[in-house]
Amino acid sequence: MNRKELIVQIKEKQSFLCIGLDTDIKKIPPHLLELEDPIFEFNKQIIEATKDLCVAYKPNIAFYEGMGISGWNSLQKTLDYIPNDILTIADAKRGDIGNTSNMYAKAFFENMNFDAVTVTPYMGEDSVRPFLEFENKWVVVLALTSNKGGLDFQKIESKDGKKLFQQVLETSKSWGTDENMMYVVGATRAEELSDIRAIIPNHFLLVPGVGAQGGNLKDVAKYGMNSDCGLLVNSSRGIIYAGSGTDFAEKAKVGAQKLQQEMAVILSEAGI
Amino acid sequence: MNRKELIVQIKEKQSFLCIGLDTDIKKIPPHLLELEDPIFEFNKQIIEATKDLCVAYKPNIAFYEGMGISGWNSLQKTLDYIPNDILTIADAKRGDIGNTSNMYAKAFFENMNFDAVTVTPYMGEDSVRPFLEFENKWVVVLALTSNKGGLDFQKIESKDGKKLFQQVLETSKSWGTDENMMYVVGATRAEELSDIRAIIPNHFLLVPGVGAQGGNLKDVAKYGMNSDCGLLVNSSRGIIYAGSGTDFAEKAKVGAQKLQQEMAVILSEAGI
Repeated sequence: MNRKELIVQIKEKQSFLCIGLDTDIKKIPPHLLELEDPIFEFNKQIIEATKDLCVAYKPNIAFYEGMGISGWNSLQKTLDYIPNDILTIADAKRGDIGNTSNMYAKAFFENMNFDAVTVTPYMGEDSVRPFLEFENKWVVVLALTSNKGGLDFQKIESKDGKKLFQQVLETSKSWGTDENMMYVVGATRAEELSDIRAIIPNHFLLVPGVGAQGGNLKDVAKYGMNSDCGLLVNSSRGIIYAGSGTDFAEKAKVGAQKLQQEMAVILSEAGI
Repeated sequence: MNRKELIVQIKEKQSFLCIGLDTDIKKIPPHLLELEDPIFEFNKQIIEATKDLCVAYKPNIAFYEGMGISGWNSLQKTLDYIPNDILTIADAKRGDIGNTSNMYAKAFFENMNFDAVTVTPYMGEDSVRPFLEFENKWVVVLALTSNKGGLDFQKIESKDGKKLFQQVLETSKSWGTDENMMYVVGATRAEELSDIRAIIPNHFLLVPGVGAQGGNLKDVAKYGMNSDCGLLVNSSRGIIYAGSGTDFAEKAKVGAQKLQQEMAVILSEAGI
């Protein structure tokens, strides 16, 4: 999926919601466990209930890898089930030397047919570039993460006054374009998004960690939105585990709807 | 495998060789392609030929992940085939927020029964710590990589004069101990190992990129070895692709032998 198609989706659905498929066998409703592939069955019902409300799905690869062969099977079936006009992001945080990154890129883009994959920038340009060599595919580079450990290194200030995540943005933005690169930006304070927008005004940002309540959604939009929207705001557990009974998909739909409606207001106010 | 057992292996075999199993279907001898599982067959013969000469095997996970389900099957069979007294390192470079890293840790340590996994430090402590909660397992943290892109961020100097990789070493060494943490150190100049040893004198270092000729092996030992050896020096393609005919395993053995013999001299000179 290319940038233009993504923006069309955002406008049509009045949504920039990404739903994280962090599907955990220990957390899905017990009635699904009797089925042949509970993980896929859960995802399928979540997708069916929310596909008109979101523009992206983001399976968290660890949850499938953690289940071995059956997990990879569930993942592939999930991917095949997601409608083609919805962006699919492999949240894999891969990254290695060139020939190895190339293998990862093939795994996610060719074999599994994901539209996008998250990568970690620590090993620099030649670890990211192989992912950029696929047409209509996206690399989502980790810049700033909102977990506690994000403070350990990402905000270290260099001699010339730049924090590491700022340097990552500045250096990496020339590796690709805003048509094949996005950034993971988990701002703990939404104001940080202003500094980020000063470096990359046009790129899409994948913003994790907005809960089912939409908490800081307005602030994220205020500081992070650009004229193409430029945001994908993710919610995982807040949506997919909103319910734990046989009506889990309906509950997920309600959670997604709430966020989508807030997003519609924000988009409308911005004239998008 | 614990540290004591690893050191016993090094002494007994007079080797600190790690063999990288970057097994690529496009590079293995053509006669293997007729077999049911060419990747496993290749690995099996490599292991059979080299198991007395090395103390660790390091499958590069991308190469297996890139083949989908059949790749994961080949990997599991390979792991099951490696003798228990040889350290197994999943070169996976994973790392994510806590609950996700925990899933990756379970995948590699519990499901696949690897002894060690490489992780990337960009997301900080809570992305690494879940890997440290498994007994007799090792986390190998990326510190300094020798690829060109290693220069992009790892050597950025902070306000207080520390390079990023030095800060990674200083901060992360307290997350675990030298009994459950190692570091990937791909020094482009062996002298850099002295600076690294000043920060982490006791930890094992996994040093990639020493070719079949053993090029800078003496320098790596000179600057990086400690009284327990403290080194695992990896060679991948230089050994496993030393030959391309039906005698590939024999050729691999010759390559491994050459490195092991150099290592024996070094260890003997150091009284280990």
